[in-house]
Amino acid sequence: MDIVKDTLSRIKPVSQELLQQAQTRLDNKTKPQGSLGRLEEFARRIVAISGNSNPDISKKVIFTFAGDHGVTEEGVSLFPKEVTPQMVLNFLSGGAGINVLARHVGADVRVVDVGVDYDFEDMVGLIHKKVARGTKNLAKGPAMTRDEMLTALKVGIELADQCRAEGVGLVGTGEMGIGNTTPSSAIIAAISGKSVAEVTHRGTGIGDEALANKIRVIEGGLALNKPDPADPLDVLAKVGGLEIAAIAGLVLGCAANSIPVVIDGFISTAGALIASELHPDVRDYIFAAHQSVEIGHRFMLERIGADPILDLEFRLGEGTGAALAMTLIEAGVKILKEMATFEQAGVSQG
Amino acid sequence: MDIVKDTLSRIKPVSQELLQQAQTRLDNKTKPQGSLGRLEEFARRIVAISGNSNPDISKKVIFTFAGDHGVTEEGVSLFPKEVTPQMVLNFLSGGAGINVLARHVGADVRVVDVGVDYDFEDMVGLIHKKVARGTKNLAKGPAMTRDEMLTALKVGIELADQCRAEGVGLVGTGEMGIGNTTPSSAIIAAISGKSVAEVTHRGTGIGDEALANKIRVIEGGLALNKPDPADPLDVLAKVGGLEIAAIAGLVLGCAANSIPVVIDGFISTAGALIASELHPDVRDYIFAAHQSVEIGHRFMLERIGADPILDLEFRLGEGTGAALAMTLIEAGVKILKEMATFEQAGVSQG
Repeated sequence: MDIVKDTLSRIKPVSQELLQQAQTRLDNKTKPQGSLGRLEEFARRIVAISGNSNPDISKKVIFTFAGDHGVTEEGVSLFPKEVTPQMVLNFLSGGAGINVLARHVGADVRVVDVGVDYDFEDMVGLIHKKVARGTKNLAKGPAMTRDEMLTALKVGIELADQCRAEGVGLVGTGEMGIGNTTPSSAIIAAISGKSVAEVTHRGTGIGDEALANKIRVIEGGLALNKPDPADPLDVLAKVGGLEIAAIAGLVLGCAANSIPVVIDGFISTAGALIASELHPDVRDYIFAAHQSVEIGHRFMLERIGADPILDLEFRLGEGTGAALAMTLIEAGVKILKEMATFEQAGVSQG
Repeated sequence: MDIVKDTLSRIKPVSQELLQQAQTRLDNKTKPQGSLGRLEEFARRIVAISGNSNPDISKKVIFTFAGDHGVTEEGVSLFPKEVTPQMVLNFLSGGAGINVLARHVGADVRVVDVGVDYDFEDMVGLIHKKVARGTKNLAKGPAMTRDEMLTALKVGIELADQCRAEGVGLVGTGEMGIGNTTPSSAIIAAISGKSVAEVTHRGTGIGDEALANKIRVIEGGLALNKPDPADPLDVLAKVGGLEIAAIAGLVLGCAANSIPVVIDGFISTAGALIASELHPDVRDYIFAAHQSVEIGHRFMLERIGADPILDLEFRLGEGTGAALAMTLIEAGVKILKEMATFEQAGVSQG
């Protein structure tokens, strides 16, 4: 418990003065003012978040948290739950989407087993932090105990603390867990008060009948568990997931350590939503990678106050959207650091 | 003339069979089908455009064409026309936005003087193809003679031919020319039949009064020159620009040489619009980098049938949007080439 309280107490709003200083510097670069749009936003926010007027975000790490979900026994996913460990092995051998995209942008992928129902051997690149062999079926009771949820949350916080020690400049979130759009939709419905049907979609690609079943399962789980929207950790424990809790912790930890964090898609945003409900200043540290195809995503982004960077019609997760957004954020920082000013280049101003 | 006719005769629609083959290969990768959205579109289109099932687009080149505009004497821009050659020198010394972003994505920038009102010395990286010292004032007569326009068009075509010989896998367009949103808006209005006010915006950042003047200038230029919308080259000559003509030629040349071409923002799209009006199959070869802040941009993209890849609120030009889009397209190709299949990774299918 103490680590959560301690982490929350370390989160401060970013400096408005640094934001303004960075924008003034951008305004002296050889371009019409504001003409690089969101790249300028990224640059000034990275300055303010890091507290460094010449931030170095070249060291980029994506954490892909894996966990299983008891609710898969309700038939909410197109894929069998065995795919969760199979994909973890795929991540470790470098053949998954996240591996390809992270290599492309020069980011490391760190795979964290926070709750897979499988015993992995020691393997290079796998971080063993298993809290439980998956969650319980939220249709029949709480997905996690409060202790399990807190343990998973701490996994994320501690990884963020370690990033600070290593000098990681930009963190991305990702996840793998067959069935995990179901707890994500449950979290949004619980926190926003929207109907389950409004925030629930097809996940990996289920049909109409399976979607109707998924909605019924979530409605039943919410009615049974009665998560308290005023207590985000209660929502997280009762209808969340172990990887979602770890992402919430990672986001909190990044905010506490002044590290910008890029949240991937639908499931990652559910974790970030819990973090931002716990402390409003967390929002200053979040970049939303992309607009997911999942219909509930935009409600979460609105509540967090984050404008998605990309819209490439992704619905994969893993951190794939985060990887691509991270290279755009890095481009913004390079604009700040590498572009010539009007004076340096001898260019007349308008 | 012959080179234009010859180029048009070489442009063919891309192979539907190759598009389908590439999608089938993507569908066997370890992810839900279609879950990488537009990245999959990029991959299959690059296969079909290049005619190569394992395309190599690592060699990426952005052409930044520079030209001046006689219409600047009507007060249509916030910046003085001296900024055109000043920015060319900035490009050559590596300090401009396009230099920073092209370095970030591993693309070369080639700067082409196709019509700057300034005598450059021989400088590394500058391609001398000056057709005239800027266009004439379109408010007082045709911007170019038909011969000038054709000569600039050929500059672009020949550069594309050279890319083919060099093995360039992906081409981007860019431009620099103070005043060049004015001819771009004139081109859209002439071709689409929309009112000038609907397709004219603030360029580098002019105020309300200057915008009203810019609209009047374009309306006057169209009324005086009477460009024929059924003859895109007539429109290009009478109300276009030398750099816009070179971009139109580059796009035609890329299509003729089976090279995918990423068009940057508002001005580049005006060039691409001329090319796609000359030959409808040109559209198969075009990627629209981003949605510009300029209000007329979306009409052009709709007419070309291109869906912008990014929306970062850019309004700079130079090729800056193209650079960032190129790295996303390259990411799509890597998904096709580097991701493991379900069989390779031992992952169960849904």
